[in-house]
Amino acid sequence: MMKIVEAANFSTRRDVETGTKTQRAAVLEILQAVKNEGDAAVLRFTEQFDRITLDGMRVTEEEFRQALDEIDSEVRDAIREAAANIRDYHSRQMRQSWMTTQESGTMLGQLIRPLQRVGLYVPGGTAAYPSSVLMNAIPAQVAGVEEIAVVTPPGKDGAVNPGVLVAAYELGVKEVYKVGGAQAIAALTYGTETIKPVDKIVGPGNIYVALAKREVFGLVDIDMVAGPSEIVVLADSSANPAYVAADLLSQAEHDAMASAVLVTTCRELAQAVQQEVEQQLAVLPRKEIAEASIREHGAICVVDSVEQGLDVVNRLAPEHLEVMLEDPMAHIGKIKNAGAIFLGPYSSEPVGDYFAGPNHVLPTNGTARFSSPLNVDDFLKKSSLISYSRQDLLAHGAKIIALARQEGLEAHARAIQVRLDNEQK
Amino acid sequence: MMKIVEAANFSTRRDVETGTKTQRAAVLEILQAVKNEGDAAVLRFTEQFDRITLDGMRVTEEEFRQALDEIDSEVRDAIREAAANIRDYHSRQMRQSWMTTQESGTMLGQLIRPLQRVGLYVPGGTAAYPSSVLMNAIPAQVAGVEEIAVVTPPGKDGAVNPGVLVAAYELGVKEVYKVGGAQAIAALTYGTETIKPVDKIVGPGNIYVALAKREVFGLVDIDMVAGPSEIVVLADSSANPAYVAADLLSQAEHDAMASAVLVTTCRELAQAVQQEVEQQLAVLPRKEIAEASIREHGAICVVDSVEQGLDVVNRLAPEHLEVMLEDPMAHIGKIKNAGAIFLGPYSSEPVGDYFAGPNHVLPTNGTARFSSPLNVDDFLKKSSLISYSRQDLLAHGAKIIALARQEGLEAHARAIQVRLDNEQK
Repeated sequence: MMKIVEAANFSTRRDVETGTKTQRAAVLEILQAVKNEGDAAVLRFTEQFDRITLDGMRVTEEEFRQALDEIDSEVRDAIREAAANIRDYHSRQMRQSWMTTQESGTMLGQLIRPLQRVGLYVPGGTAAYPSSVLMNAIPAQVAGVEEIAVVTPPGKDGAVNPGVLVAAYELGVKEVYKVGGAQAIAALTYGTETIKPVDKIVGPGNIYVALAKREVFGLVDIDMVAGPSEIVVLADSSANPAYVAADLLSQAEHDAMASAVLVTTCRELAQAVQQEVEQQLAVLPRKEIAEASIREHGAICVVDSVEQGLDVVNRLAPEHLEVMLEDPMAHIGKIKNAGAIFLGPYSSEPVGDYFAGPNHVLPTNGTARFSSPLNVDDFLKKSSLISYSRQDLLAHGAKIIALARQEGLEAHARAIQVRLDNEQK
Repeated sequence: MMKIVEAANFSTRRDVETGTKTQRAAVLEILQAVKNEGDAAVLRFTEQFDRITLDGMRVTEEEFRQALDEIDSEVRDAIREAAANIRDYHSRQMRQSWMTTQESGTMLGQLIRPLQRVGLYVPGGTAAYPSSVLMNAIPAQVAGVEEIAVVTPPGKDGAVNPGVLVAAYELGVKEVYKVGGAQAIAALTYGTETIKPVDKIVGPGNIYVALAKREVFGLVDIDMVAGPSEIVVLADSSANPAYVAADLLSQAEHDAMASAVLVTTCRELAQAVQQEVEQQLAVLPRKEIAEASIREHGAICVVDSVEQGLDVVNRLAPEHLEVMLEDPMAHIGKIKNAGAIFLGPYSSEPVGDYFAGPNHVLPTNGTARFSSPLNVDDFLKKSSLISYSRQDLLAHGAKIIALARQEGLEAHARAIQVRLDNEQK
């Protein structure tokens, strides 16, 4: 049964996962070995951890064809349509370089351009999700990234999940390697004979992948290291308890560490949802996972008012927030912290996970206070542009010199002075 | 004398600074103590490291007034004018939330909103730069951040650099604490009785500050951990060797680890710059620092063509790039990686460091491949907005179910199915 908690002290915040000493040491060793030995080390770790001796790392055209044959045509169509929606939504985020021109002749601007090459980690086994490929690769493509390399651990038969291959194929991403774990992160960072190094690595992974990403951050860029998934449903008496319960469970089935929380002004709804969760849970295939999540990290918080509920929401800064209030639009302006906001009874979380268009890679564990859903900006970089005119240098040089001298940086002052002296000769 | 190097193998890339074991352990201890003990620990570490017993941590109005009295009026005017230029440039980066409305009734959007509270670290001693206050605080203000807290280590007399206080005052930033080092980062992360916790920490610092920021990343956001400063000048025979030399030295005087590099198609220019550097260096107040930088990390790279020079530039991905070619504008499109690009003879780096408007917080050590100058986006966060219509859920529900089932996530499928069943009853 989901526990009922007090609003005042309720928190879902967990410590940031930094692994054990043994795990950290193992990751450092793998990174170093791949840096020094390249492919040989990658193949050795693949034998050791994935228990497979690979002929070649790169997925062949033949393997793509097999995956296309294997996949259900309804699923393939749905992947295509989802991809189009995701592309449309992300295209609206695209920005242009800009420039200002001043009468003095000075021009200032900002160049906004794509990263050149990006690596995408896709987990293996039961967590190999085609939707992850779409959500991570499409924003990069919209940004204009020319090269996207996918890495994913091979199964014991040496194969990659066909859904993952079909999703990559539909996007025109043909560079897929059967490499996973910290060795894949190392290969993408340092490069090997087979895998060219990238500028940024995105995508979820297990603790070894997360630790490796943290370690190489600075040599390459990384996305946020994701924590367990969360949902908060903010509901009043207008909400359908069966919808609320189903949405809470869709989060809970991800991971025993996931947290599903109902915040409601309505005690009757709280009780009805409690019962619905029990009933729906009993017949779920991933019952054990969902049950562990609901027992350990699930909670119902009954509040006195929508305002109090919004305070709880803003404090939790949830990854997913569903607003099932009578007039959800009226409250948007009061929601300060949330990764994705789902409004009204039909905006069930899976609509956003798979299909509507917004990204499903979202800030977890309270980081919606300061970070954002994966978006096109994550694959763009900016350069400042300064073309200063002679007129402006003569007009403002003395001020620049004054500022430099105040900071004790005389060579800065002289770089301006040498020009003033020469131009005014 | 600046050494002449071969284009092919030349690199300025340094290892990412991760500190010694002792430094890392010291930082962890400081973070833990401040987390547990709050102000008491902050004051204890301030006594230990800054050798001062503080009466109060927060800078008083009286201290602001003293700083305003102390500062040269020409410098104060220059700070004001620089602030206005920086504000103007950054205001052009501001973005709006957006929404799409579809005939089906579905609405999708992206809320773009400021972080609520930001901490700004300003180094003490000779590295206490008013310009750092402007460059870090103004983008946050333009983004709409309501609370900015400045932390900076007190001098042995318990005072803060007056230029820093005047810069903060001119921006209306009144919350300044005389706290530095890892203890300041801890206070901003966890909060103490005196210092409220923040959502993001920006600003440069020494190795302890950098390690502490790396450690708390995830609990709060941080800016990039900066490496040593770099400049690359790409020049042809049209360049004035005295200008080039002065600009190289303005970078070199920052830090013995800084690197100043000339890439040129013109052997005569290379020799002339070599001589100019020696002459100008001899009479610099920060001669020792600049000389160490020039000897160890300075280099001149003579290339066969502008194209080859651009290859070197793109490989180095410099923090600052000056383009002193005959027609600098013609080459912008070929510059792939650079933090700030200075075009033509009058765009001396200090123009950008202090005054023109673009930010001087730039990606160092080759990270311009994937990261950007500090900008307004760094203080904004996004939330996705999904208001899905009944019509769309009925039309597309089956596809969402197919995608969820392909991934083995049955509770996701059922969250949609429960709605289809109920709405079609």
